[in-house]
This record gives sequence, structure tokens and C-alpha cells, in this order.
Amino acid sequence: MVQGKFDIIHGWAAMKPGLKVEPWSYEPRPIGPHDVEIEIMHCGICGTDLHSIKADWEGVNYPVIVGHEIVGRVVTKGENVTRLVENDIVGVGGQIYSCQHDDCSECNRGLDSYCSKAVYAFNTKYPDGGRSQGGYASAIRVDANYAFKIPDAIANGYLEYAPPLMCAGVTTFAPMIRKGVKKGDKVGIVGIGGLGHLAIQFAHALGTEVYAFSHSQNKKQQCLNLGASYFINTSDEENLKSVHHKLNYLFVTSSSESNQYNKYMSWMDFGGTIVLLALPAGKMSFAPAEFVYSGIAVTGSLMGGIDVLQKTLDFAAKHNIRPIIERFPMEKINEALLHVDSGKVRYRAVLDNPVTEN
Amino acid sequence: MVQGKFDIIHGWAAMKPGLKVEPWSYEPRPIGPHDVEIEIMHCGICGTDLHSIKADWEGVNYPVIVGHEIVGRVVTKGENVTRLVENDIVGVGGQIYSCQHDDCSECNRGLDSYCSKAVYAFNTKYPDGGRSQGGYASAIRVDANYAFKIPDAIANGYLEYAPPLMCAGVTTFAPMIRKGVKKGDKVGIVGIGGLGHLAIQFAHALGTEVYAFSHSQNKKQQCLNLGASYFINTSDEENLKSVHHKLNYLFVTSSSESNQYNKYMSWMDFGGTIVLLALPAGKMSFAPAEFVYSGIAVTGSLMGGIDVLQKTLDFAAKHNIRPIIERFPMEKINEALLHVDSGKVRYRAVLDNPVTEN
Repeated sequence: MVQGKFDIIHGWAAMKPGLKVEPWSYEPRPIGPHDVEIEIMHCGICGTDLHSIKADWEGVNYPVIVGHEIVGRVVTKGENVTRLVENDIVGVGGQIYSCQHDDCSECNRGLDSYCSKAVYAFNTKYPDGGRSQGGYASAIRVDANYAFKIPDAIANGYLEYAPPLMCAGVTTFAPMIRKGVKKGDKVGIVGIGGLGHLAIQFAHALGTEVYAFSHSQNKKQQCLNLGASYFINTSDEENLKSVHHKLNYLFVTSSSESNQYNKYMSWMDFGGTIVLLALPAGKMSFAPAEFVYSGIAVTGSLMGGIDVLQKTLDFAAKHNIRPIIERFPMEKINEALLHVDSGKVRYRAVLDNPVTEN
Repeated sequence: MVQGKFDIIHGWAAMKPGLKVEPWSYEPRPIGPHDVEIEIMHCGICGTDLHSIKADWEGVNYPVIVGHEIVGRVVTKGENVTRLVENDIVGVGGQIYSCQHDDCSECNRGLDSYCSKAVYAFNTKYPDGGRSQGGYASAIRVDANYAFKIPDAIANGYLEYAPPLMCAGVTTFAPMIRKGVKKGDKVGIVGIGGLGHLAIQFAHALGTEVYAFSHSQNKKQQCLNLGASYFINTSDEENLKSVHHKLNYLFVTSSSESNQYNKYMSWMDFGGTIVLLALPAGKMSFAPAEFVYSGIAVTGSLMGGIDVLQKTLDFAAKHNIRPIIERFPMEKINEALLHVDSGKVRYRAVLDNPVTEN
């Protein structure tokens, strides 16, 4: 068993439901033969982090360090790790382990996101009883399969833009490539935030005609700058008429409970596909006839998986896809969380750890 | 303009909402250059026919002759028809015209079922004000694109089995080929009736593992005979557990209002697809998370289209796919309608016209 650099990992944990985090440290798990230890340089703030610490969702165990858009430097590697070496700059997203056994009916089909033994970046119980702790911290230890090399074009000078690619980026890009989104398709993006503003760029780089949907007219110019062909104000019924029956794909990144799913159906071309990416509360309701007469499909997608995470990074590097970020030093994390919670962040907050000696 | 054989078409029309039809005749439309006139030999009874004459659905104009699983003999062809000749044995399904214009955004993509100028087998208004009348009749005139040659293997000795292929058959087979159902897939069929008993056969012939779902235990042996690998009694919770998380595709042919869509989700493998084929009243309700965490898609499919109708017939001929039918002479049509309405038909009723001289 190799020794790691971090005997104790210092982080910022929520001690109880709410938006507040405070300094807290924990003794990390041993570094297994397939693990790497990563010194964290930057970590993005995703809406999921807030839902978790606020206990909007069930099953959160406190104290919990959240954060799953992680970028850092490999400082220790397990003895069987061959793909990575010390000082590699890597990214880690929402998942940090899957079994990868030949007889796992999920892993053996590239569906490792759904592996029954999956460990997520935080708040997952390991078989030995330990719990994963996330990226608002000095370091993290993960299975090396879930540490992805940041391409040089990003790592050299633009590393702070990498964290949002690890969750928001792959969450939007994975279904685009899995569903076969291609040049010339008409692609709608609902909700222009952390996910949406990256989805516009990925869809544009794939050669599609991008329709950005938002009720915030003040996002129009930015959407066009990011590559949208059209900005559709969802509060403007006249504007909405222009997309009647138009779209081949619609990616729904908004987690608003007021999402109007039946209206979305009216924007879709015959046989179009609506892909849900966020987890708003509330229900959607459809008549079977809405599907039969239109051939429209409603589906969803969760994060990425080993097979698409590296593709996401490489595609983003090749096409200069970069999130728009607001940076906060790690010690101002509570300020950053409040800012994200207010909905005012444009479009992703990234926490910076103090620079350390190599 | 060519002269047809039928100056007057005699049929059985509903004169008002209800299950009763009575003799009624009409003067057919002129035979256009792209039309054929077909002397009807057999016509299947589809649930849609009953919904229409009972006025379960809106917009029915009386008198109406329903029926859209039609098989007959070409007796007259328009001057521009080259694909068919007199005495060809052909089938006609739910649609009898689409514009096929190069600039039709539906026809030019093979989505002719959705052409805005589509004419369906009955109760559709032509631009000149005339209305289409269906197959419970002596003859019908249709666009030649919608008259499909019955393969010899069926036409020679098994013609009475052909009508259900024209609607029930293509409705189940079209989404199987469009969605890429392939050998080894696990395919569920909900509702073992006119559509379902054909869906089992098509799925089996595609090399899939077929799961037949019904609350009627007495259909078990027949389902297995038709090619199902498993019969699942939907009233038996223990039995249902065996399909938890199992299916790649589920085709829902049941039009029961008590369809349990959320339960269907639990039968699906990650990324599986539920295809709705029937039009039950009532709504389905889902949480967005059900889609995000599963990757399951819900979609629907309507009839077929020019590109799949001939494929359906050819595939059925090659694999000996034949509906199980109960035959009624045309003059016993009211008895047949009551029998279908009772839900007791096994599994499709076919009306036979008196044999005429060639």
C-alpha cells in the first residue's frame, strides 16, 4: 500500500442542513492499488451541491464536503495505476468509482454511471462503511478510471475553466453524442445557466442550429455570442410561435418547477427528442396521444461515464469551449454558495485553492 | 380521365354515433392519374373503427364507412400509375394519400404519415370537399402509393390473413425497425390483442427475447405458441418481479385507461424505450427524475408510412407471420362489430366480401 501525501484532508463541510459550510477535516481512505490521490487546485459549484447541503434531497449524512467539478494534480498513484503519473493534471466529476467487473451488466456495456457499486464524489457509503467526501477540500482520493487528463490546450493557461466541464459539460455533451446529434439539426436548450451555457457551445460546435430558451431577455446577447442562432424569450408568446414544430432535440437544463413540458412538446418536430438533464420537483403529465401522433420521445440523461468524459474534455479543447466563470478563493466559499443560490452567478462559480509548491 | 368499374360503391355505414352500420352507397371520386380503384375482397376490423363510429373521438361525419385493413384486387388504374396493373392483389391501410411533393417537409423525409395533406382511409375531407370512405364496402379508390402488393406467399392461399397486417401489423413492426430492435434484445409487449399478438410474432422473428404481458392467464399458451419466451401475468406481483429492470423495449398496445405507466418504467433496463401504440384516454404522469436516473425514453408511433408498409408485408411473408383471425361474411358485419366490442375476438375479425367474377 502506497503512502499518500495527505494524512488529513482539510475541507469545508456542511455540518447540518443549510447553506453554510465550515472548516472540517477527515482522515482519508487508504490509497488502493487502482487509486490516485489528487491535490485539488479548483472546484466548481454545481446546483447539486447546494441541493445536497440544504437537504432538499433525502439521505445526506453530515458532516458532508460536497463539490464534484474537481481539477487538480496527481500527487500519489496506486501501484497498479499505469495510465497516470505524478503531476498529471486531471479532472474528476460526479463519480469516482465503478466496479468495472466483466460480469457487471452495467459496466460491461459502458453504463458505468449506473453501476450498482458506483461511488459518487460525496455522500456515498463505501462497502467498508466509509463515506466519500468531495471537492471543497485540499485533496481527494479516487479510482484512477475517474481521473481524466486535462488536455494541454486547457491545462496550459486555462485550467480554471476546466472544472465545469467535469459535470455541467459532460452532462450536456454526453446525450448529444449518444443520441447522435449532428450537423444541421435544430437543437433547443432550455435554461441558460451552468449547464445551458455550455450546452449552447457544444451544440454549436457540433454544427447544429441552436435555439436558446430563457425568460431572461438580458441573456440574449451572451447566448448569441456563445453560438446560439436564435434566442427565444419564453415569456413572449409571439416569439415562441416561431419555434412551433421546429426542433429535433431539446435539452432541458432548467430545474424550475414551472417547466412547461407540454409546451415543449409543441416546439418539437415529428420524431424529435426531449432530453431532461435537471431534477426539478413536481410531475410532468402527458396524454398517450401526444406521443403517438408526434413520435416525440421524452428521455433523460445522468452525468456521463468513462467513455464520454475524456471525449468531452478533448472536444472542448479542440473547439475552444469554455465556461463563463466567476472565481472565488476557497476561503470565500460561503460567499460563493450564497451567490450561486441567488441565481445571479454568470454562469458557473469556481473555487480556487491556494497555490502550493509542487 | 379513366372510367372506373364502380359507378356506385356499396358499403356499410354508420349513420349516427353507435355500433350499428347499415347498407349505404356513395358515388366515388373520379379516378385521378395517380389513383387505383380496388375491388375489396377482405377488410379487418380495428379498434379505431369502433371508436370512430361510436364517436368516442371527435370530428366524425356521418354517414361514415369505416374500415382500413383492406385487401383487394386492382380493377382500374389511373393513366400515370406504372407500379401496379389490373388484377394485382394489394393491401391498403390507414392512409390513402400524401402529397409526396419535394418541398413537403414530411414527405421528403419519409414521414408521409404526418403529411399535412394526408388523407386517411375514412372520414378525411379532400381539398374539394369530398370525404374519404373506408373498407366495409365493395370498393375503394386510393392513391397508388398507398396500394401495396401482397406477396405471393400470402396472396396464394392465405389472403384473408393479410388485412390485419395493413394496420395492426405495420403499427407494431414500423417502430421495431425504426428504433433498431435487434437480435438478443429483450422486448415486452403489453396487451395481447389485435396488435399485440402480431407484435409478438414480429419481435420473435427479429430474434428478440419476447415477454408477453397480459392480465388474461388464458392467453398464456397462445402467446408462447406465437413466439413469446415468457408470459407475464400483470395481476401477479411475484411474476412481475421477474422482469424488474429487464427490458430494452416495451410496446404498449393496450388502450386500457388503467395502463400503469409508472410500473412499466420499473420493467425497463437503463436506456430502454417504451413505445406507445394505442390511444387510451387519461394521462400519464412522471417525475423528471424517473427519466434522468434511468435514461429510459417514452415515445409513440402512428401507423407506418410508405417506406415500411411493403417491408412489413415482405417480412411477414418471409417469416410466416400470420394473424389469428375470426372470419365474418360482410353481411354479418353488425354481429362482427359487437363481437369485437365485447373484447372476445381472438385476435382480429376479418370481413369477407362475396367472391366476384374476375
